[in-house]
Amino acid sequence: MADKPAISSFEEAISLSSPRDATTKDYVLQQIMYRIKDPKKSLKFYVDALGMTLLDKIDFPSMKFSLYFVGYVNPDEVPKDDADARYKWMLSKSTVLELTHNWGTENDSNFSYHNGNADPRGYGHIGIQVPDLDEACARLEKLNVDFLKKPSEGKMRGIAFIKDPDGYWIELLTRNPVSDPQS
Amino acid sequence: MADKPAISSFEEAISLSSPRDATTKDYVLQQIMYRIKDPKKSLKFYVDALGMTLLDKIDFPSMKFSLYFVGYVNPDEVPKDDADARYKWMLSKSTVLELTHNWGTENDSNFSYHNGNADPRGYGHIGIQVPDLDEACARLEKLNVDFLKKPSEGKMRGIAFIKDPDGYWIELLTRNPVSDPQS
Repeated sequence: MADKPAISSFEEAISLSSPRDATTKDYVLQQIMYRIKDPKKSLKFYVDALGMTLLDKIDFPSMKFSLYFVGYVNPDEVPKDDADARYKWMLSKSTVLELTHNWGTENDSNFSYHNGNADPRGYGHIGIQVPDLDEACARLEKLNVDFLKKPSEGKMRGIAFIKDPDGYWIELLTRNPVSDPQS
Repeated sequence: MADKPAISSFEEAISLSSPRDATTKDYVLQQIMYRIKDPKKSLKFYVDALGMTLLDKIDFPSMKFSLYFVGYVNPDEVPKDDADARYKWMLSKSTVLELTHNWGTENDSNFSYHNGNADPRGYGHIGIQVPDLDEACARLEKLNVDFLKKPSEGKMRGIAFIKDPDGYWIELLTRNPVSDPQS
């Protein structure tokens, strides 16, 4: 553990970078992929509990996996009757979750994925901004969603953490800044 | 391995969900968090190579970590002189990467994070859409970015995979659909 950050200030961090390369100006963070064990459980969670929309589902039979794309998009926009149009439309939306299901894992009681927050660590969580944190948490509690941290618990107030059906963490936050309780 | 998807069709997947709960209509996927070993290397990669903007840097001295928020936002918009305004502004942008740096890891030659794509698997990658994949790859090759897969390699054409300084995977894609080569 060091006693200071690797970069002392925002100004120093800014000074380390070059001006933006013009060829990158239309780059888009379109998707985040993680693997799921059971798409029925994941859809129930991301669509019914978190209010996302299922944008598309694509099967890759030769490799025995399917992709489920979910995100915060108006469900009325989904091209329901034309798979090709739907795929192209999904690729115009961002940022969406790409949930990868390797066929058969849902039937293996010993199978689970690693959420990145215990050793070996790496990936952390997605963060969903909600207009009213207490209202959102009360509703999710009623839906029996698994809470890691409620807004009133822990060092950092004003945020909550829940788990998806695979144990991946999801932060619930508002537009209000969170600060270090001791800084 | 099963020989068919857990959900047979898009229509079946749609039928599993309830109509969207009205209280979720303003939910936003605001952030994705993962941990990084060395913020200087990560900023060079995400800002200089991938063209993202550093939106904010927040230190948590009592817990000895810092957060670096990067994303596809016009760099001219960043409130450079007012940290409080900058934090609030960053929270109004989406979807951004929240890169967590635990102080001191950059000095530990044995330290590394787990990218989720080897056992134990879970997290996969982010996907960045670029207007011209060959042009983007040629530029990133010149910048000595580490490629896992070039567009002409592997089963799936028209996409590439690169690695960030921690070994996290990043897919480069366009707005063109990718299909199962055997379907």
